[in-house]
Amino acid sequence: MSDGKTSPWQDYLAAGLGFRNHWYPAFFSHELKEADTSTGNGEPVGNFRCEVILGERILFRRVDGQVHAVHDQCIHKGVPLSKKPECYTGGTITCWYHGFTYDLKTGALINIVTDPQSSLIGRHNIRTYPVRETQGLVFVFIGDREPAALEDDVPAGFLDEDLIMYPEGWAKEVNCNWRLGAENGFDPAHAYMHRNSPLVRGFKVPTVLGDTGLDNNKGMEVINGRREDSGPSGVRLIRGAGTPVWEVDVVAGKTISAQYLPDEPGVMQGMIPEVGIWMPGVLRVDPFPAPHIVHFEWYVPVTERTHRYMISWGSKVTNEQEEKAFFDEMKYLWRDFVPQKFNNEDMFAREAMDDFYSAEGGWHRERLFGPDVLISAWRILCSHTNRGVQQLPYGAQRATAGRY
Amino acid sequence: MSDGKTSPWQDYLAAGLGFRNHWYPAFFSHELKEADTSTGNGEPVGNFRCEVILGERILFRRVDGQVHAVHDQCIHKGVPLSKKPECYTGGTITCWYHGFTYDLKTGALINIVTDPQSSLIGRHNIRTYPVRETQGLVFVFIGDREPAALEDDVPAGFLDEDLIMYPEGWAKEVNCNWRLGAENGFDPAHAYMHRNSPLVRGFKVPTVLGDTGLDNNKGMEVINGRREDSGPSGVRLIRGAGTPVWEVDVVAGKTISAQYLPDEPGVMQGMIPEVGIWMPGVLRVDPFPAPHIVHFEWYVPVTERTHRYMISWGSKVTNEQEEKAFFDEMKYLWRDFVPQKFNNEDMFAREAMDDFYSAEGGWHRERLFGPDVLISAWRILCSHTNRGVQQLPYGAQRATAGRY
Amino acid sequence: MSDGKTSPWQDYLAAGLGFRNHWYPAFFSHELKEADTSTGNGEPVGNFRCEVILGERILFRRVDGQVHAVHDQCIHKGVPLSKKPECYTGGTITCWYHGFTYDLKTGALINIVTDPQSSLIGRHNIRTYPVRETQGLVFVFIGDREPAALEDDVPAGFLDEDLIMYPEGWAKEVNCNWRLGAENGFDPAHAYMHRNSPLVRGFKVPTVLGDTGLDNNKGMEVINGRREDSGPSGVRLIRGAGTPVWEVDVVAGKTISAQYLPDEPGVMQGMIPEVGIWMPGVLRVDPFPAPHIVHFEWYVPVTERTHRYMISWGSKVTNEQEEKAFFDEMKYLWRDFVPQKFNNEDMFAREAMDDFYSAEGGWHRERLFGPDVLISAWRILCSHTNRGVQQLPYGAQRATAGRY
Repeated sequence: MSDGKTSPWQDYLAAGLGFRNHWYPAFFSHELKEADTSTGNGEPVGNFRCEVILGERILFRRVDGQVHAVHDQCIHKGVPLSKKPECYTGGTITCWYHGFTYDLKTGALINIVTDPQSSLIGRHNIRTYPVRETQGLVFVFIGDREPAALEDDVPAGFLDEDLIMYPEGWAKEVNCNWRLGAENGFDPAHAYMHRNSPLVRGFKVPTVLGDTGLDNNKGMEVINGRREDSGPSGVRLIRGAGTPVWEVDVVAGKTISAQYLPDEPGVMQGMIPEVGIWMPGVLRVDPFPAPHIVHFEWYVPVTERTHRYMISWGSKVTNEQEEKAFFDEMKYLWRDFVPQKFNNEDMFAREAMDDFYSAEGGWHRERLFGPDVLISAWRILCSHTNRGVQQLPYGAQRATAGRY
Repeated sequence: MSDGKTSPWQDYLAAGLGFRNHWYPAFFSHELKEADTSTGNGEPVGNFRCEVILGERILFRRVDGQVHAVHDQCIHKGVPLSKKPECYTGGTITCWYHGFTYDLKTGALINIVTDPQSSLIGRHNIRTYPVRETQGLVFVFIGDREPAALEDDVPAGFLDEDLIMYPEGWAKEVNCNWRLGAENGFDPAHAYMHRNSPLVRGFKVPTVLGDTGLDNNKGMEVINGRREDSGPSGVRLIRGAGTPVWEVDVVAGKTISAQYLPDEPGVMQGMIPEVGIWMPGVLRVDPFPAPHIVHFEWYVPVTERTHRYMISWGSKVTNEQEEKAFFDEMKYLWRDFVPQKFNNEDMFAREAMDDFYSAEGGWHRERLFGPDVLISAWRILCSHTNRGVQQLPYGAQRATAGRY
Repeated sequence: MSDGKTSPWQDYLAAGLGFRNHWYPAFFSHELKEADTSTGNGEPVGNFRCEVILGERILFRRVDGQVHAVHDQCIHKGVPLSKKPECYTGGTITCWYHGFTYDLKTGALINIVTDPQSSLIGRHNIRTYPVRETQGLVFVFIGDREPAALEDDVPAGFLDEDLIMYPEGWAKEVNCNWRLGAENGFDPAHAYMHRNSPLVRGFKVPTVLGDTGLDNNKGMEVINGRREDSGPSGVRLIRGAGTPVWEVDVVAGKTISAQYLPDEPGVMQGMIPEVGIWMPGVLRVDPFPAPHIVHFEWYVPVTERTHRYMISWGSKVTNEQEEKAFFDEMKYLWRDFVPQKFNNEDMFAREAMDDFYSAEGGWHRERLFGPDVLISAWRILCSHTNRGVQQLPYGAQRATAGRY
C-alpha cells in the first residue's frame, strides 16, 4: 500500500462484492415470523426468507425465536432448497428433490429420505452463517473466521441502550455497486443535488450549496483507522470544517443562492447533522430527518452491480409516551417521505454513476475534487480495516436480484 | 480415460452440445406437410420447419413425401433461407436476397438468379442432413460420418413392428442442458419428488420414497457398453435391485410413508416399470403411465442451456379396435395429463439444477450418493460409445430457442 | 496491405465502430431548436439532443443559432450531464450532481457550484466536437485531428448550391453493423429482393433481376481512391456495365421475368439511377425515387451492432414554385412511402445478415460472387482513404441505442 506501486485503496478497488468476515444486515426482524411447525408435513411452508448477500444465497428461518441461516443449495445436485422448501420439523429442511435433510442450526446432513442408510449422512453439511438480531435488524456474518464482535461492525452509538429504533425500516435494491451507494451517502458536496428536494423545500431545511476548503485533512476525523482498538472504524465529517457556500456566481452575472439560510425566520432549527461512515458500509446521520432522529443507512453488497439499500431510524426517548410519539411520527410521516422524497435523488445519482464505474473504468478515470478528500479517507479506511475481500463465488455474477 | 488422470466420463463432461454422428428426433411426422408446389412462384410458401439441433440451424421440407434437411444459411452472405423461404419448385429453395438457388436433396448451388452465368454455380453447396422417418418421428443425423444405423440410436424395442405409436407426441423446450434432462429422467431416487403428483395421487400409483442398497453395480445392466455389437447402447435399472423404502423416520419421531403400497386394495396394478436410458439420450419406461403403454422421452441438445424434451407413447396392439382404444386413451387422457401433471415436476427440477451445473461448476462440485451409481454408469456409457463430441459451431451460443 | 500477408481491406474489417476523423450526420437541423435561456434556472430545460455516434455519447445544444456538441459525461464521477440537464445560461451546462459547470463552446470547466474555489476550475474540460450544419443536417466530426473539410466527407454534388434538400429527412436505428448497411445499399444485385416491393409494383419501375459480367473492374469507377486530391472519395457503379438479366430459367422449365421492362408502355421513364457510395459511409442514388429527385442515405455507426440509417432527398429546383411542388411531393408521398415500402426490405436484409457477420465469423466465411466486385472496391477504398479506425471506447459495447 505504501510502496508507491499500488493504490492506497487497493483492497477497496478489489471489493466489488464487499468485504468478507463482517456483519451485514439481512432484513428487518419483523419480516421473518416464527416457523410454522404445525404444517411441517413436507409440503412447502411459509416463513422463510432468502437473500443474496455478497453474492451468496442465504436461506433464513426462525425457530423458537432464533433465526438460523444456511447456504441455500443442496450439496447433492446444487438445487436451491428454497425453490420448494420442505420442513418436516421446525429445525430441519429437506430438499424437495431427493430428500436430503439438513439441521438448520448446524447445517449437518442428518438424513436422506430416498436412501436412509447412505454413508453420506452425518459426514456432510451445508454452510451455516452466524446470526445476531438487535435493534430491529437481523445481522448475518459472511465469512470463514470466528465472527467478529457485532459492536465492531456498526456505527458508534447504534447499540446504545437508550436508542429506540423504529421497527419498520425501509429497504430497496439499487442498481449499482455498493461502493457508489456508500460514497454518495457520505459525499459532503452532494447536498447541491438535494437543494430542491421536497424535504428541503417543504420543511425549510437550511442546506448549503457546498463547501470550500475541504481539500485538506482538517475536515474529518478517522476513528480507529487501523483497528488498533476494539470498536467500530469510521470516518466522520467535522461540522463547520469547510467554508459554507450559501451563494455563488455560477457564471458572471448569474447568481444562485441556497433556498434557506440558518437562523432565518421559519426555517427548521437544529438540523446541521453530523455525518459519519462506518465499516463495512453504513452511514450515520445525526440528526436527520428531524432534530431528534438519528438516521442509519446500509449499503449491503448483493451482486457486483446491485446493493441493498436499508434505512433505519432511531431516537433517544425516555418514556413510553415519547416512544409512541416517535413511532407515530415515523409511521405517518418520515418512513415513507424520506426515501421517496429525498433519498430517491441519491438512488438516481448512484445508478447514474454505475455505467462509468462498473463498465467504463471509472475507478481509474474519475477526477476527484476538494470535498472528495472524505471519500478518499473512507477508501483508505476500508483498505486498512477490512477482514478480507469477498471473492466472486461460483455463479455470483449471475445473481441479478437480492431477494428471491 | 483409464490413466487415472482424467475423469471416467470426460467425453460426457465435454458434451454440452451433445454427441456428434448420432440420430436425433427433430419433430413429429404430422408436423410437416407436403410442400405446396402449386404456389412455388417465389413468394414465401408454407410447409417448412426449422429447428436448432446440437446448435445447428436446420431447415426441413417434405417433397414427394420425403423429408429433406439442409443447413439454413445461404453460403453468400449467411442469411437464413427460412427468413423468407422462396421456392420456385418443390425440390429447390432460392435465397430471397440474391437468388442463390439450391437443390434441397443434394444442397448443390444450381443457379443464381441475379447472375445466372456465375462460376460459383455447380461448385458449391449447403450442407445436407440425412433424414429417416419412422414411428411417427422425423430423425436427423447430425455429423460428418456415414450415417449410423438408426437402429443403433434408439432404445431396444422402439422399432418393433407391433409397437404402435400414438402419432401426436408432445414436445417442449426446457431451459437447461440436455444432460440434466437425461439424468433426471433416469434417476431412480427422484420418485420422492413425484410422491404427491396428480398422476400418483389421482391414479393411486404405488410409488416408493426411495431405495437403499443401490450403491453397487448389482442394480443395473449395461447393454452394449462399448459398442462391440450392433444395436443400441444403454443402461437398464434392474427391478427390485435395491431395497425399497416405503416408510422412513425423517427425524426422530417424524415418520413419513409412501402414499400407496403395492397390493393395497384399489391401487393401480402392474405399474412397476422397467427404466432404461439409451444413447444418444432417450429414456424408455415400460410401462408408463398405464400398464399397457410404453413411454419414450428424448432430450435433444439445442443450445448449451436448452434442450428439446420430446415424449412419445406406444402400445402393442393386435387389431384396429385396440389401436383406436389406445389412440382415444392417449388423446383424451394421457397425452396432456402426463406432461402437465407429472413431467412438469421433472422440468421444474431440471431447470432448478441448471445454474449450478451450467454456471457454478456443478459437474465438479456435485456430491453423488448411492442411487447415483446409475447416473455414473450412464455417463461412462456415453463416454465409451459416443461417435464424437459436438463442438460449438459459430454462433451456437447465441441460439436461444430451438424452433424459429 | 499489399504485402500479401494481410487482407486488402484490413482497416475495413477492423472498423466495426466506423472510421475516426470523419464527419457524420447526427440529426436533422429542424430537430434541435434554440436553447430556451429564459428557463435557465438550474431546473432541467428542454432543447437538448443526445446521440451515440461511433460509440461516443454526445450532447448537442443550439445557442444563438449555432449547435454545440460536447461529450455527455461529467469529468468528476462520470454521470451523463443529460440525465438531468441544468443550464443557468444558454452557453453553459452544469452537472446536476455536484455543480461542475462547463462552457458548451470550449468544454472548459468554468466553475464548480459546490466548491467555487477549486483548483480544478480552468484546468480541465470535457471534450467538444466540431459541428457543421448544412443541407438540413447537423454534422459532427468524430476524431482528434483538425477537422477535415466537410466537402471531403459527403458525396459529390451533395453541397451543390442549386440542390434543395427537403428538410424533414427520415432516420431509424437498424440492428446491424453499419458496414452491412453500406454494402446492402451499394449492392447491385440486391434489386432482386425489391422486385415485388410496392414502390416497384405500384409505380411500374423497370427493375432488372440482376446482371451478369460484373465480375471485373469495368463495371465501376473509383473516385479519389487514395485521397490524392481534395474532394470526396467514392465508388460509382457505371450504368450498363453488366449485362442485364430480365428473364432467367431458375430451374429447367421454370422461368421468371422482371415485372416491367424499360420502354414498355406505362412504365416509369428515366429511372435508371446512378449509384455511388462515398466515404465515410453514404450512398447517393440519382435519381430515386422519381426522375427529378436525388436520394442520399447514411449509415452512421452507433454500436458494433447498430447503425443509424438516415435518408435525405434533394432536387434541383429553379424557382419557389418548383420548390413548393418538390416539398409537397416529398411530404405527401415519398418521405414515408420510400422507407416504409422499399427500404424496409433493405433493413430486413441487413438485420438478417448481422448474426452471421457479427457473431459467426461471416467476414471470413462469406462467399462473394461476381457483382460483389463493387463491394470489394468499396472495402478497399475505405481501407485506403480512412483517417483512422475507431477503437472501442470504454463502455461502447454497452450502448444499445443511439438516441437516449
